[in-house]
Amino acid sequence: MTQTIAVLAGDGIGPEIMAEAVKVLNVLKTSDGLDIALEEGLVGGIAYDVKGHPLPPETLALAKRADAVMLGAVGGAKWEPLDISLRPEKGLLGLRSALNLFANLRPASIYPELADASPLKPEIVSGLDILIVRELTGDIYFGQPRGIRTLENGEKQGFNTMVYSESEIERIAHVGFQSAQKRQKKLCSIDKANVLECTEFWREVVTRVGKQYPDVELTHMYVDNAAMQLVRYPKQFDVIVTTNIFGDILSDLASQLTGSIGMLPSASLDANNKGMYEPIHGSAPDIAGKGIANPLATILSVAMMLRFSLGRADLADKVESAVKKVLAQGFRTRDILGNASTSQYKLVNTQEMGQAVLNAL
Amino acid sequence: MTQTIAVLAGDGIGPEIMAEAVKVLNVLKTSDGLDIALEEGLVGGIAYDVKGHPLPPETLALAKRADAVMLGAVGGAKWEPLDISLRPEKGLLGLRSALNLFANLRPASIYPELADASPLKPEIVSGLDILIVRELTGDIYFGQPRGIRTLENGEKQGFNTMVYSESEIERIAHVGFQSAQKRQKKLCSIDKANVLECTEFWREVVTRVGKQYPDVELTHMYVDNAAMQLVRYPKQFDVIVTTNIFGDILSDLASQLTGSIGMLPSASLDANNKGMYEPIHGSAPDIAGKGIANPLATILSVAMMLRFSLGRADLADKVESAVKKVLAQGFRTRDILGNASTSQYKLVNTQEMGQAVLNAL
Ligand SMILES: CC(C)[C@H](C(=O)O)[C@@H](O)C(=O)O
Ligand SMILES: CC(C)[C@H](C(=O)O)[C@@H](O)C(=O)O
Repeated sequence: MTQTIAVLAGDGIGPEIMAEAVKVLNVLKTSDGLDIALEEGLVGGIAYDVKGHPLPPETLALAKRADAVMLGAVGGAKWEPLDISLRPEKGLLGLRSALNLFANLRPASIYPELADASPLKPEIVSGLDILIVRELTGDIYFGQPRGIRTLENGEKQGFNTMVYSESEIERIAHVGFQSAQKRQKKLCSIDKANVLECTEFWREVVTRVGKQYPDVELTHMYVDNAAMQLVRYPKQFDVIVTTNIFGDILSDLASQLTGSIGMLPSASLDANNKGMYEPIHGSAPDIAGKGIANPLATILSVAMMLRFSLGRADLADKVESAVKKVLAQGFRTRDILGNASTSQYKLVNTQEMGQAVLNAL
Repeated sequence: MTQTIAVLAGDGIGPEIMAEAVKVLNVLKTSDGLDIALEEGLVGGIAYDVKGHPLPPETLALAKRADAVMLGAVGGAKWEPLDISLRPEKGLLGLRSALNLFANLRPASIYPELADASPLKPEIVSGLDILIVRELTGDIYFGQPRGIRTLENGEKQGFNTMVYSESEIERIAHVGFQSAQKRQKKLCSIDKANVLECTEFWREVVTRVGKQYPDVELTHMYVDNAAMQLVRYPKQFDVIVTTNIFGDILSDLASQLTGSIGMLPSASLDANNKGMYEPIHGSAPDIAGKGIANPLATILSVAMMLRFSLGRADLADKVESAVKKVLAQGFRTRDILGNASTSQYKLVNTQEMGQAVLNAL
């Protein structure tokens, strides 16, 4: 049965990197019998420009109907003056929420060929391989009440609500433990249980769920310490599970440890492994339209989609091997070239990198 | 007129490092005519053990009466099972709130002698000098309502409230801008204005206050990006101003960039420059009682106190010079020795390091 993939390229470099990912999917369709149909939709700033909303109803309908969603990137300075309810980001948040994509998997691992690109010393990061499991549909991102109100004394006040119910914590904890089972069997849950009751509850529930996974070593860490430890000695971590807002901060931090965020994919999954797949980097307005963005994170997101949503781990492996091969062959977009010399490597643009992957496939 | 200093050593290594700071103050009293009286009080876990509360009324009274407060560190695994309202941390939070210490200044700078200790590459961090201005009495730390409740369907839910009023944002923004004026005149305000209304309001107010400081270049950054940028290229920052919870995370991250958190002091100030001074490192239960903790962050906190609360910038300079001198002389506690050889440096314990500073004074 043909599976439908919603292709939402979004803003900035989104369309450029998505084009290469689509080529990869088309090759797999032809040469490996991957039975999929791609359908494009608008999301983010471009959707606002064309349809007046960052998540138009037809895009939402497409995403709901689809078996998986590929997303490029959203946002840009152009739309920052808009009301928060119409910003490109709301398109992304709306998709996460409407599709119930509560489990965000963000690997932060280093390719040996690119270890040099890290701002950290090689001995601190070489071999780094962390998986951050971020809760994605709860917390202060979606909590009510929220807004800006005027107090009785006439003063204005901004407010948001951090909130987690038991079942929300349980389901993400299970994802954390099960992810750890497939890896080094170490799960670190990150909270601020010494100050915030919401995360004191988080810790309590994660601990209880942990009883069902005696083979996984569970530890807890405060978020401020986690930010330090990720810099000090990141290799102490295997899988991290945390809340939406802490996960937002820590996963970006972790990805930067690699120095090659242009290489990092992510998956956002619902309870049935339907998912949305996107590079962890943003829309990079500064280089948009120049054709120099690195498409590998998006192509690796295709691999995650094949593995998690399309049941084709074989093809996921194939795509990941192709990416490793092009790195070994010396192909580098500007972002992963770093200070290395171009005589040593082949500096390529977005399309050339995409082509190198197609060749490797 | 004699100024009163409350000395709250707290838990873990607190008493050990505070003892050395007290020696420094006593030397200044004798040799430089610093007219102060030191009064000790209990706070944190030790206060709970002795008095049944992490912030006993007599300690609070002392802190209120005093002209400045020196704090060691609070907390430890021993007290983690306690109810959140009785944990050592509540002693610290209670002091911040009761004394209205809304402005937390956390420098993250690197001593040239210790640049090697950083987990980051030398070219990324050498010469690093950031000041983080963290709001300390608002936000989700103190916001109401908060707690753990049972929903109608019987499910439990943890919740907290992130909240900032206009006046709270204004006063910390002023501290941020004025700090920048004394430095490189660059202020970066960090928020999550693309998602959280509370920090959308924060951005709005900071921008408005900025109009009064045309000589300071104001920029804004989202907290997730800030966590990345601090790792990628930390020297882009001069002064950072941010909310309580984001400041908690980012200041710990920034301090770890230096690799020598045993060297970093902090000040928490009210509107009249009354302050509480403490090392940014914690109570380090693992090395407590061993006499090997680094007292320099606490001694440098004394310098901050002399400068901000006691009006003795001359003595602050003197203490800071003494610390630089002992580093130049090769004295190192274990935490700042790193991988360097002990033939090159003088490995010392807490008391010996304190004595080296006294000699340098
Ligand atoms: C764009 C923004 C709303 C989003 C988030 O905060 O979740 C992004 O930072 C991310 O991490 O995917
Ligand atoms: C101990 C804890 C309550 C405190 C905080 O979160 O503010 C600490 O992490 C700090 O940064 O001073």
